[in-house]
Amino acid sequence: MSRLILALDVYERERALEIACETKEYLWAIKVNWPLILGSGLEIVPELKDETGLPVIADLKLADIPNTNRLIAKKVFEAGADYIIVHGFVGRDSVRAVMKFGKTIVVVEMSHPGAREFIQPATDRLIEFANELEPFGVIAPATRPERVAYIRSKLKNGIKILTPGVGAQGGKAREVLKAGADYIIVGRSIYASDNPRESARRLYEETLGV
Amino acid sequence: MSRLILALDVYERERALEIACETKEYLWAIKVNWPLILGSGLEIVPELKDETGLPVIADLKLADIPNTNRLIAKKVFEAGADYIIVHGFVGRDSVRAVMKFGKTIVVVEMSHPGAREFIQPATDRLIEFANELEPFGVIAPATRPERVAYIRSKLKNGIKILTPGVGAQGGKAREVLKAGADYIIVGRSIYASDNPRESARRLYEETLGV
Repeated sequence: MSRLILALDVYERERALEIACETKEYLWAIKVNWPLILGSGLEIVPELKDETGLPVIADLKLADIPNTNRLIAKKVFEAGADYIIVHGFVGRDSVRAVMKFGKTIVVVEMSHPGAREFIQPATDRLIEFANELEPFGVIAPATRPERVAYIRSKLKNGIKILTPGVGAQGGKAREVLKAGADYIIVGRSIYASDNPRESARRLYEETLGV
Repeated sequence: MSRLILALDVYERERALEIACETKEYLWAIKVNWPLILGSGLEIVPELKDETGLPVIADLKLADIPNTNRLIAKKVFEAGADYIIVHGFVGRDSVRAVMKFGKTIVVVEMSHPGAREFIQPATDRLIEFANELEPFGVIAPATRPERVAYIRSKLKNGIKILTPGVGAQGGKAREVLKAGADYIIVGRSIYASDNPRESARRLYEETLGV
């Protein structure tokens, strides 16, 4: 089974569907975010599923009070999303509100410079929090394999690690999988390449046998 | 001028427009969130503006990396939103990415139980952060007027305090305005009342002369 997730950070419905269909054979799942949903409506979720047969991860970085998180998650799971990404930072109740509706992935670390201010100092507590809630998975940056290894060492068996940042942002697929990631998330290196299918195939082959 | 913001937490376009029009005369602005945008599309923003002549605050609780925050903010400001609500905990760069496109309101405190885990312990640093970035305003809970007073005492003059939680959640309009809030945000007590217009009028009058 593939361990490659396509971050479909394009904003037009047709382009999104085209790239997803070209690359689907090498993917485990497709990740969509707010800009695509704003551009195409939530209908992009069932369309992608129909066209590719793959699971869809809604990368919403939800960070609201429990009731609002619940309302958003309900709509997005009803539209057919298989997984939703939420922030742990807003607390257990806000994350539990999403978990009631479907499979949830919790952000425990981010890699942009601003993450050093509040998120990274909280990572240990966010990991404990994930161990307690047992979501489907957590998000950790592929750009820092040593942090992926650290998170793997602290995280309960069975909770998956999904890592954005492979490719254009500098993360290396094999390195981050060896460090303990279960899935790598790749965007630009696939959708912005001259041959998305070939780029996806190459990345897929890189992940085999790690 | 009114200091009352309607939290339009209803999810059907027609109901949203109806309540907004009935109450507009008593409002300073209208706040919309993701569930309404998911249900009605971003077009609800210009429609609300056209029908009421009031500013629209997009309560997105943005909490992503700078580039994704930027892409979302761009689309939402282009649709006509006047203000966007973002999280400070993702760091300065993520907030600055939004501020480039329009007036920004930063969450510095939340009042649901889970906020005690990470957000509340970070409030002092989030206030410093707001003082440095000078956004239009910050969000602080109306349910805890003593915290509003504290935040007011630490916050630079000119940065507004907007407070959700008045009404159904227990916050008292006059009390929180006296504590230093500039605007109160009211949802259920208006839109779920038998007479939204009358409820908005009463709240508006309560806020006069504080």
